Amino acid sequence: MTENNRLEAIRLGVDSHQERIVYLNAHCHIVGSEGFTALSRVEVTSARGTIIATVNLAHDSLLHRNQAAFSESAWLALGLKEGEQVDINHAQPVSSMSYVRSKLYGGDLEYSMFLEIVRDIQAGRYSDIQLSSFVAACASDNLSNQETACLTRAMIDVGERLDWDLPIVMDKHCVGGLPGNRTTPIVVAIVAANGLTMPKTSSRAITSPAGTADTMEVLTNVELSRQQMKAVVDEHGGCLAWGGSVSLSPADDKIIRIERALNLDSEGQLVASVLSKKLAAGSTHVLIDIPVGPTAKVRSFEQAKCLEAKLIYTAKALGMTVLVHRSDGNQPVGKGIGPALEAKDILSVLNNSEEAPQDLRDRSLFLAGKILEMANVAQPGEGVATARATLASGAAHRKFLAICEAQGGIKEIPEAKFKSEYLSREAGIVTHFNNRCLSQLACLAGAPNSKAAGLEMLVRLGDRVEKGQPLFRLHADAQGEMAYALDFLSQHTECCQVSGESV
Amino acid sequence: MTENNRLEAIRLGVDSHQERIVYLNAHCHIVGSEGFTALSRVEVTSARGTIIATVNLAHDSLLHRNQAAFSESAWLALGLKEGEQVDINHAQPVSSMSYVRSKLYGGDLEYSMFLEIVRDIQAGRYSDIQLSSFVAACASDNLSNQETACLTRAMIDVGERLDWDLPIVMDKHCVGGLPGNRTTPIVVAIVAANGLTMPKTSSRAITSPAGTADTMEVLTNVELSRQQMKAVVDEHGGCLAWGGSVSLSPADDKIIRIERALNLDSEGQLVASVLSKKLAAGSTHVLIDIPVGPTAKVRSFEQAKCLEAKLIYTAKALGMTVLVHRSDGNQPVGKGIGPALEAKDILSVLNNSEEAPQDLRDRSLFLAGKILEMANVAQPGEGVATARATLASGAAHRKFLAICEAQGGIKEIPEAKFKSEYLSREAGIVTHFNNRCLSQLACLAGAPNSKAAGLEMLVRLGDRVEKGQPLFRLHADAQGEMAYALDFLSQHTECCQVSGESV
Repeated sequence: MTENNRLEAIRLGVDSHQERIVYLNAHCHIVGSEGFTALSRVEVTSARGTIIATVNLAHDSLLHRNQAAFSESAWLALGLKEGEQVDINHAQPVSSMSYVRSKLYGGDLEYSMFLEIVRDIQAGRYSDIQLSSFVAACASDNLSNQETACLTRAMIDVGERLDWDLPIVMDKHCVGGLPGNRTTPIVVAIVAANGLTMPKTSSRAITSPAGTADTMEVLTNVELSRQQMKAVVDEHGGCLAWGGSVSLSPADDKIIRIERALNLDSEGQLVASVLSKKLAAGSTHVLIDIPVGPTAKVRSFEQAKCLEAKLIYTAKALGMTVLVHRSDGNQPVGKGIGPALEAKDILSVLNNSEEAPQDLRDRSLFLAGKILEMANVAQPGEGVATARATLASGAAHRKFLAICEAQGGIKEIPEAKFKSEYLSREAGIVTHFNNRCLSQLACLAGAPNSKAAGLEMLVRLGDRVEKGQPLFRLHADAQGEMAYALDFLSQHTECCQVSGESV
Repeated sequence: MTENNRLEAIRLGVDSHQERIVYLNAHCHIVGSEGFTALSRVEVTSARGTIIATVNLAHDSLLHRNQAAFSESAWLALGLKEGEQVDINHAQPVSSMSYVRSKLYGGDLEYSMFLEIVRDIQAGRYSDIQLSSFVAACASDNLSNQETACLTRAMIDVGERLDWDLPIVMDKHCVGGLPGNRTTPIVVAIVAANGLTMPKTSSRAITSPAGTADTMEVLTNVELSRQQMKAVVDEHGGCLAWGGSVSLSPADDKIIRIERALNLDSEGQLVASVLSKKLAAGSTHVLIDIPVGPTAKVRSFEQAKCLEAKLIYTAKALGMTVLVHRSDGNQPVGKGIGPALEAKDILSVLNNSEEAPQDLRDRSLFLAGKILEMANVAQPGEGVATARATLASGAAHRKFLAICEAQGGIKEIPEAKFKSEYLSREAGIVTHFNNRCLSQLACLAGAPNSKAAGLEMLVRLGDRVEKGQPLFRLHADAQGEMAYALDFLSQHTECCQVSGESV
């Protein structure tokens, strides 16, 4: 490290997501002497540590020649202060990339190799380009069952791990893709009300109108520290926390981001992603719901079966009990799509309202019943009945309120400022929903950032509708967002199709 | 396209190389309504066209909420003007990525699929992440010989192509990795002086201290338009132009950039890269030099043989004659490393100076001789003698000067301001050069941006040296760069090793 390579740090205020970028003036002496170009990988050292970052070059208009500007991820990783001195040097090649190359060349990777890769990914030593090559190397069915188990184990081992000191800890996971499918809070309430432990951590939406954490945040605080989470679970048997605050399987989020950008599914990585988070959360028994439908994430039963086999092999290898349930993925679940509207559905199911969406209740009871059976709290075949009784008695509702109270108190559900109904253009039968279009529509209306925004579904598959009858209601908090959603809708009538038989 | 999605364009002055980035204020209404996050791919439309770009989010401090800022590549691709209105919308998925996924899933790609992929890459529709997945999909020997030929053909078909209307057009290529190996200008002069056509296009350095175009630029203008290039070649039979100005195989540069970032060699892509540029340049006969050595690009004869087989198969499939020559890659060639110092070597060989480096002369004569034999201008085995006679007579020198004159006149070679000798620490025999370290050292001294900077080699393998005898001389144009190079050198004595036998 020479004094020659010292620059003054400034915060550029650019969010490039996980990619750590350092912006150097193209005429800065270091750029010339080191031969840096855009995409060069450099080591940046501050008083508090060292990171690897990707170089972008900047004009004089943006940056002085003695300055180095940083993207948010780089700035925060180094804990920089404005004007602080940093040293910029060539980065050593990341040695675990040799395993990625070996995998691309058809080699089999062992646990220790995955561990090095995942550790480097977690530490931010992979550029997005390098991450992409790792995702590509694992794509399709390129990972054997054994490799999948090794990757899963590695992903757990680099993160924090919760330990409940209990023989059985329940969990559930949904492979996703179905808007409004917010069974988790209801299932947790029922399961915990039956004396079981279910310390649920959930994600926020990345591209969907709501994740479970977004929906729960409408009702209570979800950003719990590990201590807070432990206290809530110790007292109530369950919690509904945002997973991001407890740092379980931290490499996973970075990998997922690249998989989405590539639209590249790797079965092995999906399995590792799901199971590593569950194991790190200290779960021993996990029920996995795979909705199957033409516009859901998993599109065929064949694909679901394949995924199921890999999930069960890996879970067994890691000493976890997994049960897979394939469910109908042909239409949204419940009435609401979007955080506040889904939260309303959850409360109406929990307080046994007559307005409660039947399908959300039935799905939740089924899943809760299966979990009760897995834990031997209910006899095989009797789980649903036990779950129904727990819900009907009000015990599930009380448990849910107690959990919310313990997490920081219950909040009032916000109401959207603007509403607009989408009317059927003809009389007939509702024959088709496009889940992807409906999700996008809810996002355009403002979900999940505007909590109150989203869709209120007014019909279901097979319903007979009149011409001019409302099919769903758009909720938005800003007139612009409403206009935008309506514009999209006028071009995407496949959101909801009515077959025009004469009535 | 709605008015809602209109923003005011500003030029941020960031060079992210090929990745086209649009910076949007995180609180901009479009970001909210469209659900854009960092890494989202968007379609940006100006009055002059549409591009796909990657979103980065920006703070209020950098950007107003009604502004969209652009990286240089995006700004230039759209031909934007400051303050112009642009529309930002979701981008359609790039459909050729489905072929990349298919390749990752083990499928075989056909010509039409490669054509779509390469066309999209050239048009900038692939993000760096997507490019990385394509490079990964083709890595190792994942491309069959037939696929390699299809990819090569596709890379030619999307670019411009030169047509010389001649039965034979000669070319040469060096796979690279050996500093100072600047035979091309000498070979072109000898071959053209023998009445053959050799319209040479060369590249600039990306990570090395000099490309042939950088070295030739010391002596004359290398940025020729297609018309200029044609005029020079029509009159003199040869030229020494920068390939970047004639747009041959334009997708190749984007792919190469990602391969280097990943340090991932794909034989198929290397072959496609080399041969597509040669075919697009209108060449019919190509001599390919593969230096082999532990610190050269190709490290073993086995690797060289494998590459050779693929080159010959593909060349044959595309109707081109290719001859491969494997040469010694254990030490730098000539005395100079860096544009000006290499240019001096070239001139001293051409004007038959006694100071001329023997190895550069011998290599050039050998390669030129092979080309003369390939073209039947010399009988088999007599090519080198013919080349030697052309050089000795001064005909090659005259041809070289005529080409330089036609390209814009000959320039004076600059001299570095600072020089420093690196002395042997002991008496003994020079046993080892590290080509990679020497290249990096020359870069640190300022090459290729400072034309005069680089290294002047004073000894060769096997030379006996005294303690304190200079091994090479550093040339730099700035004191800081010299200091920087010396600092690196003190930590990298493997640049040149002397075995300490007693003398």
